[in-house]
Amino acid sequence: MGPGSSATAQNLQDAFTLGRLIAGQGWALLTGGRNEGVMDYASRGAKQLNGLVIGILPDTSPETVSPAVDIAIFTAMGSARNCINVLSSDVIFTCGMGAGTASEVALAIKAEKSVILLNTSPHCQAFFRELASQQVWVANQPEVAIDIANQLLCR
Amino acid sequence: MGPGSSATAQNLQDAFTLGRLIAGQGWALLTGGRNEGVMDYASRGAKQLNGLVIGILPDTSPETVSPAVDIAIFTAMGSARNCINVLSSDVIFTCGMGAGTASEVALAIKAEKSVILLNTSPHCQAFFRELASQQVWVANQPEVAIDIANQLLCR
Amino acid sequence: MGPGSSATAQNLQDAFTLGRLIAGQGWALLTGGRNEGVMDYASRGAKQLNGLVIGILPDTSPETVSPAVDIAIFTAMGSARNCINVLSSDVIFTCGMGAGTASEVALAIKAEKSVILLNTSPHCQAFFRELASQQVWVANQPEVAIDIANQLLCR
Amino acid sequence: MGPGSSATAQNLQDAFTLGRLIAGQGWALLTGGRNEGVMDYASRGAKQLNGLVIGILPDTSPETVSPAVDIAIFTAMGSARNCINVLSSDVIFTCGMGAGTASEVALAIKAEKSVILLNTSPHCQAFFRELASQQVWVANQPEVAIDIANQLLCR
Repeated sequence: MGPGSSATAQNLQDAFTLGRLIAGQGWALLTGGRNEGVMDYASRGAKQLNGLVIGILPDTSPETVSPAVDIAIFTAMGSARNCINVLSSDVIFTCGMGAGTASEVALAIKAEKSVILLNTSPHCQAFFRELASQQVWVANQPEVAIDIANQLLCR
Repeated sequence: MGPGSSATAQNLQDAFTLGRLIAGQGWALLTGGRNEGVMDYASRGAKQLNGLVIGILPDTSPETVSPAVDIAIFTAMGSARNCINVLSSDVIFTCGMGAGTASEVALAIKAEKSVILLNTSPHCQAFFRELASQQVWVANQPEVAIDIANQLLCR
Repeated sequence: MGPGSSATAQNLQDAFTLGRLIAGQGWALLTGGRNEGVMDYASRGAKQLNGLVIGILPDTSPETVSPAVDIAIFTAMGSARNCINVLSSDVIFTCGMGAGTASEVALAIKAEKSVILLNTSPHCQAFFRELASQQVWVANQPEVAIDIANQLLCR
Repeated sequence: MGPGSSATAQNLQDAFTLGRLIAGQGWALLTGGRNEGVMDYASRGAKQLNGLVIGILPDTSPETVSPAVDIAIFTAMGSARNCINVLSSDVIFTCGMGAGTASEVALAIKAEKSVILLNTSPHCQAFFRELASQQVWVANQPEVAIDIANQLLCR
């Protein structure tokens, strides 16, 4: 998860690497599905290693789907699809932060999922750790995020 | 908006006062509708001054609805109803904080609504202000929150 | 419930009368909320007798809300809001038929609600009665529909 | 699409064959995902030919997912997930009929999708054809349904 049009160059680079690493683990990648920002770069990264990419779209427009998405689920539910994103994931990774991404972190915590925050601000980390210290992890490299996820999934 | 079963005594007292003040302004109160925590106390406060109370329920159980709710909307959509809560409100007030409430603040920011945080932690304030400084307001008294809302609604 | 832009003159007249009668019973009217077709005419009918009118909107546009709606709930969920319409109603009335209305009848049956079909085609009546004979009622006058609803609500 | 626990033996046999044929065409199969009725048998049929099976679940319970589902999308939205089912499909097949299935046919028509009804009653066919003659097709053999779908997808 991560920002769309407001993603930074660092967010996009992290997302691409993370997508590659997720595919490299043999995991399926689930994103918000649009052809923009972190969703798009993570999907492209996963596709480079032939990973399976699922996109949960907020609308019904085939033309806004990232070309790297294999399975497009059209919800026509706007931000309500953020709930589906987190309920359908085993572990949630975020690259960067924005209002939509923050809602996904909060909904993931509510749904008792683990969240790994990659390169977010100190305020962001402090808030989400205060909210649910047992479910929130912090990483500053995609490789570290994957490492944490592996440990969480083996518990 | 605010925590259900994990609400503190301070949250509940704030919620009741805020509900009363909202009704006193002649505004309708919209909450998550359940008979628990901030939702319940805000609804009871509004009802004391004969305000109109709308509850957007996550499920379909009449027995979990606050007795102070006039109009119960049953969604059966779990946390996806949080989107409806913020889209259907003119201004969002929070009393206390939890994962569900944090998702509502984030979704409200995404939907370009204004949010007034009542008695939340410094980390919470810092994070949401960083996310959207123009849309996030802080109050430490229900009366101050109402005052801010009045100014926002008159802009 | 009933068609929007494709409503017939008969549907609109039935909807207006039904809205008036619903308000006359002291019941709240819940519709799809838009300023078009059966939703709009039923709301206007109810408003004429000062009834309470709730609209569950498929989008977030204040300008598409019927002026007779008192409480607008914005879902941004398109046709998924049809589920909320039926879950939040005690009895479902339909004036006329279309794909959206048919989905509401089916969802109402699924949710174990009673549906009263006003002036629908023989094929429509035959199909829904075959699907759930205990939950589907037929009326050819708004007054008869109200009569049936009264008996259902008193069981 | 088709009934869960109320599916007939004929519905289940049709669903299994249809699932096999869908996989044989190289198409992905999307169902309601549960381990029951038409959803389950269609998924098992597709899996027999190594097809890709996507399940859109109404809840969040891994234990209710058909073992033949490859990708489980958890919505926690009850029947509101029926909208997602039809919006995410290119063509909708039904095996048998029930309230949930009827809602999917109606929502599919609303979303301007084509629907192929397999072995449904004359009343059902008459109603949906009356509603949208251009979008509703009837078949009495799974092979015929596939044939129609192929022609629709090539238009």
